[in-house]
Amino acid sequence: MKRKDIHDILHPTSIAVVGVSNDQAKGATLFLSSLLEIGYEGQLYPVNPSVKEAMGRKTYPSLLAIPGRVDHVIVGVPARIAPSIVQEAVAKGVQSIHFFTSGFAEVGTDEGRTLQKAISDIARGKVRIIGPNCMGIYNPKAKIAFDGGQLPIAGGAAFVSQSGGLATYFARNAIQEGNYCSKVVSIGNSSDLRITDFFEYFSEDDDTETISMYIEGMADGEGRKLLNILEETTGRKPVLIWKGGQSDQGARTAFSHTGAMATSYGLWQTVVRQCGAILVDNVEEMQDFIKLHRLSSPSKGTRSCLVTFGGGNSVAYSDICAKEGILLPELEEKTQAALVEFIPPMGTIRNNPVDMSAAGWVPGVIERSLMNVAKDPNIDSIVFVTQIGFVAGANAERFGMDPKVILDFQVREVVSASQRLDIPLVCVNPVPFEDLALEELRLYVKREFEKNNIATFLSMERAARALKRRHDYDRFVDKVKAMHVQ
Amino acid sequence: MKRKDIHDILHPTSIAVVGVSNDQAKGATLFLSSLLEIGYEGQLYPVNPSVKEAMGRKTYPSLLAIPGRVDHVIVGVPARIAPSIVQEAVAKGVQSIHFFTSGFAEVGTDEGRTLQKAISDIARGKVRIIGPNCMGIYNPKAKIAFDGGQLPIAGGAAFVSQSGGLATYFARNAIQEGNYCSKVVSIGNSSDLRITDFFEYFSEDDDTETISMYIEGMADGEGRKLLNILEETTGRKPVLIWKGGQSDQGARTAFSHTGAMATSYGLWQTVVRQCGAILVDNVEEMQDFIKLHRLSSPSKGTRSCLVTFGGGNSVAYSDICAKEGILLPELEEKTQAALVEFIPPMGTIRNNPVDMSAAGWVPGVIERSLMNVAKDPNIDSIVFVTQIGFVAGANAERFGMDPKVILDFQVREVVSASQRLDIPLVCVNPVPFEDLALEELRLYVKREFEKNNIATFLSMERAARALKRRHDYDRFVDKVKAMHVQ
Repeated sequence: MKRKDIHDILHPTSIAVVGVSNDQAKGATLFLSSLLEIGYEGQLYPVNPSVKEAMGRKTYPSLLAIPGRVDHVIVGVPARIAPSIVQEAVAKGVQSIHFFTSGFAEVGTDEGRTLQKAISDIARGKVRIIGPNCMGIYNPKAKIAFDGGQLPIAGGAAFVSQSGGLATYFARNAIQEGNYCSKVVSIGNSSDLRITDFFEYFSEDDDTETISMYIEGMADGEGRKLLNILEETTGRKPVLIWKGGQSDQGARTAFSHTGAMATSYGLWQTVVRQCGAILVDNVEEMQDFIKLHRLSSPSKGTRSCLVTFGGGNSVAYSDICAKEGILLPELEEKTQAALVEFIPPMGTIRNNPVDMSAAGWVPGVIERSLMNVAKDPNIDSIVFVTQIGFVAGANAERFGMDPKVILDFQVREVVSASQRLDIPLVCVNPVPFEDLALEELRLYVKREFEKNNIATFLSMERAARALKRRHDYDRFVDKVKAMHVQ
Repeated sequence: MKRKDIHDILHPTSIAVVGVSNDQAKGATLFLSSLLEIGYEGQLYPVNPSVKEAMGRKTYPSLLAIPGRVDHVIVGVPARIAPSIVQEAVAKGVQSIHFFTSGFAEVGTDEGRTLQKAISDIARGKVRIIGPNCMGIYNPKAKIAFDGGQLPIAGGAAFVSQSGGLATYFARNAIQEGNYCSKVVSIGNSSDLRITDFFEYFSEDDDTETISMYIEGMADGEGRKLLNILEETTGRKPVLIWKGGQSDQGARTAFSHTGAMATSYGLWQTVVRQCGAILVDNVEEMQDFIKLHRLSSPSKGTRSCLVTFGGGNSVAYSDICAKEGILLPELEEKTQAALVEFIPPMGTIRNNPVDMSAAGWVPGVIERSLMNVAKDPNIDSIVFVTQIGFVAGANAERFGMDPKVILDFQVREVVSASQRLDIPLVCVNPVPFEDLALEELRLYVKREFEKNNIATFLSMERAARALKRRHDYDRFVDKVKAMHVQ
């Protein structure tokens, strides 16, 4: 598979959507409306022999009835019709077909396997297949989408997935976190185009800064290829891999899902980590890493200082950090002495975590705390922890204060400090309570921080995990660079 | 410590609050306003020699100046004044003092230790002390509160905590989850009254159905007492223990927090588990268990069936369940045959997880799926997974459907099935996206389910963990009962 081929497949200048109707709940129509919503600028041809018009657009009875050239075909028709569509596509000379259609090898029946073999046989050497049983392509730059809400805003995050649901989820989550995508590809049963075909492309793609993959299983020989591309890539770009079907019961589900045969997860972990890949367990961990990579500079080590309010959380947070491999060393005497000047001794922990308690409400205390901690030679990064529920909840109401005013001053102090610090500062900004007003304030704080390049995380655990992964990856890159220098 | 004493301390008929002012941000005043907000019905005496009135109430210059009897005293004054307050309390003949005041042993200075010893020495044998450095008592039945928003609604959840922040958080979280409290006590440095004093009381307290504890460290000999009470209690009531300071760095923080000396967590785990305690790692895990215990009947085993939409999550969910000790066995041929009658084969997994895909939008499918799964002899419980983002998000909008109508029909089907099932049914209802409208719908679905005794959990991981803990606890109780019969 050459790079050029994949590039063309991801940038078609004309698309036919086969199986559209006026029922928007039906698969093919969903793709048509997604393409219309994102504003696809190429030629768009709805195909259905039974209707004259779909979503206000003229339909064509078949691929062959389309007057112009067709680069890419999206298919949502019953599986038994699939072989005839491939025949048409071959006759029409299209470059790629994406089958949303399911009912192939993943069903585990002879009929399903036979149908999948049939489309592969007809297409081989003539038309490339994405799928079957998948969502296909989201390419914001080329304005191709497979779901509503997929914005035409391009970024550096690439994702290739053996699950359509997770591809959909990744794209939505990425947009939510500001981790805009370069390309997202859902490949389903990968009867033809595989994980490694897209991985290889993303590795060389200048628009792609991080590569994420959801893998359930691989074809014979594909594992070796994956490792080769990993070795080629991880020194230049982070590669995040989530392996579905790690457990026996997950592997059984993965088989029913995409017909994938899984290998032992232990083996996976070892070899894939050796090649510098970052192993994750869900989409959120992908987004957390991508965000930290996007917004933060590398840290020199795993020694963090937490700056927070309230002792009970401090202990819990220390335990979480220990578990995730983030150290919270004691602060120097000098730093402690500096902090005690403006954080009163009562009810506070002047050590690490720095617990500002109620002093955190006094203007200047947050910023001075952060600046002093950053000077401590034992500290490589700072984690600021918000307390929206505490700051903006019952207390603000009771004191007759506008919660937004308090939060604004806190945000201002953190942002101002972060711009002067020479070590990374990130933020844990947990969901306060199930209160829509507080949730709105949390989202406000998140936006303000991230606008100013301060990555926020929903929990201490997620922040610690991202920091550790980032650290491990940065050290890996250092080693690769050192090797190249020699 | 006799039960009667603790009972009296938790049900004072008169309370003095020392150190009140008109500055609501100040500690003592916060307690006064919390007591007023919850509607404390006993005598309430604000004390401060420097002001005549606080929050519209006459203040007294000292405890001795109060005309009537005083059962309980809440103190928020600087630590150095604390000994003189204890002297007054002894002279006044009060039964208990709660010191919100911090600056004692937890600071790690000679001065702090000396002050803590001083108040203990003066009080010994005359007045009981809660704290210092803590939030004291929330008793909804007696209408005593230490925070705004603490409702006078009593339930079965008791909590005793060495962290004030976590006691505050537990109470708020409990109210949010409908796990109303019997009593919450924050004991801070436990210079006098300890974890085990309250544990012993909760063990016998008829209003208490579950007992939760946050422990950072225990005094000499208290560990033995804890085990004795555990052995006495766990066959009758679940006891949940969160041990803070599990790691070395957490233990160091715990020391700065409440002056507690921690023991090895490994030892803890072993002995405490042997006595039937349920070990947890945060307040959310406590609430999840309490909710499951409150709403669900025991299950016969750990074999669950997930009923959901969308394949990618199914694989991830299988892996999570495997990790948490929840089995997802294959369904019987007969069950699979029944399901295939109304769930079309395409894109679905008729096995476990049951993936209804788009068929889940067809009226009747959810209820019939649940009823058929429940009949399968391989299945002990059902986990229904909502997809608010998918059901009510972009798709509902695009199809011009009212998301609430779709959700209502789905909720109705699940509730109707759950009322006819003879195995437990719980629900995973994850936060959809950072969208306030969707979050509102999620909360709506949560309320509807829990009103109908279907426990909802924020993630598959949390549901699986709660199910496993519940199962382990139920088997422990079976064993205890079997022993008693012999």
